[in-house]
Amino acid sequence: MIDQLIGHFSKIRPFSDTEKTAIRKNSIIRKFPVGELLLKEGSRQAETFFILKGCIRRYRLLNGEEITTGFYAENQWVISMTDFPDSAPADDYLVCMEECILVVGNEEQAQSLFKEFPDFEAIARTILQQVMAEQHKHMQAYLTESPEQRYLRLVETNPGLLQRVSQYYIASYIGVKPESLSRIRKRILKPDK
Amino acid sequence: MIDQLIGHFSKIRPFSDTEKTAIRKNSIIRKFPVGELLLKEGSRQAETFFILKGCIRRYRLLNGEEITTGFYAENQWVISMTDFPDSAPADDYLVCMEECILVVGNEEQAQSLFKEFPDFEAIARTILQQVMAEQHKHMQAYLTESPEQRYLRLVETNPGLLQRVSQYYIASYIGVKPESLSRIRKRILKPDK
Repeated sequence: MIDQLIGHFSKIRPFSDTEKTAIRKNSIIRKFPVGELLLKEGSRQAETFFILKGCIRRYRLLNGEEITTGFYAENQWVISMTDFPDSAPADDYLVCMEECILVVGNEEQAQSLFKEFPDFEAIARTILQQVMAEQHKHMQAYLTESPEQRYLRLVETNPGLLQRVSQYYIASYIGVKPESLSRIRKRILKPDK
Repeated sequence: MIDQLIGHFSKIRPFSDTEKTAIRKNSIIRKFPVGELLLKEGSRQAETFFILKGCIRRYRLLNGEEITTGFYAENQWVISMTDFPDSAPADDYLVCMEECILVVGNEEQAQSLFKEFPDFEAIARTILQQVMAEQHKHMQAYLTESPEQRYLRLVETNPGLLQRVSQYYIASYIGVKPESLSRIRKRILKPDK
């Protein structure tokens, strides 16, 4: 299964057999059940995940209500901001929405890989840049789109997700009540009515 | 003036004199007038800026209207997502709100520094992580806060900015009309009324 991660890395640049072996040797693959919390508010201990299989939801707890702020599925990186030097404790949660098979990494492990393969630091930087660009795009869109536009973007960019995630969380993610999401979906399905 | 940048870097780790000289030699400092566009929608050519002096606004153009999505001031990094490999063209603008003195960098220049000082790659990664954590925090807050809470956060985290930026842009940034911002400000100043 780790070949999925190596395949992902190889899009950045080809790897030698020695490097592939090092990645295989250093990667920790773990299975998590539905509902498992991978990150909790206030936590300082944090890991970076690469999703081999499954779906993860990010949310923030506000006055007892869960506000969904992100979804992640296969071949996506889930980076906890608490993994960074001098960072504040986590202000949000990560929960497995399905049984998940994840590559689990942390800063210490990354540093030991960088020591052996200094080149990997450039790859880590590229991945960070990609995740950051995605995050920026999401932010820009959120700041300037209506809930309906947000829903359409989700349909367009991640149609599989809509089948896998409860409408309740989709509504929270686009910033409306579940009833409003039903209306938006009806309007999209029958645009002439 | 470049010592301001070196001072910023030194918070991550101390630098040798050779390294300081390399940073001095490789840094390009430029002055930009008020109103200068540092990035335009559709652009692919992009640079990274470190603000020595001045204030920059990020905005997106939507149906002819400018939606302000970010402010940056002294000792902050302004990273254009178009600077990344395989990234889409810019979807937003960066404009100087005051006369700005900036350190201007690009990927090519960074790569040549990394070649001479492989260690700098780790510093670049740390800076990216910090910018990413800030961006994440802003996003989380935006998704879960009311306009009034957003304004209060701005007052708390960046009081100087409010003196330097027109209320019109502050209103756009917190997602309300200028009239609503006036009401919010009155309510905050006289909480008992």
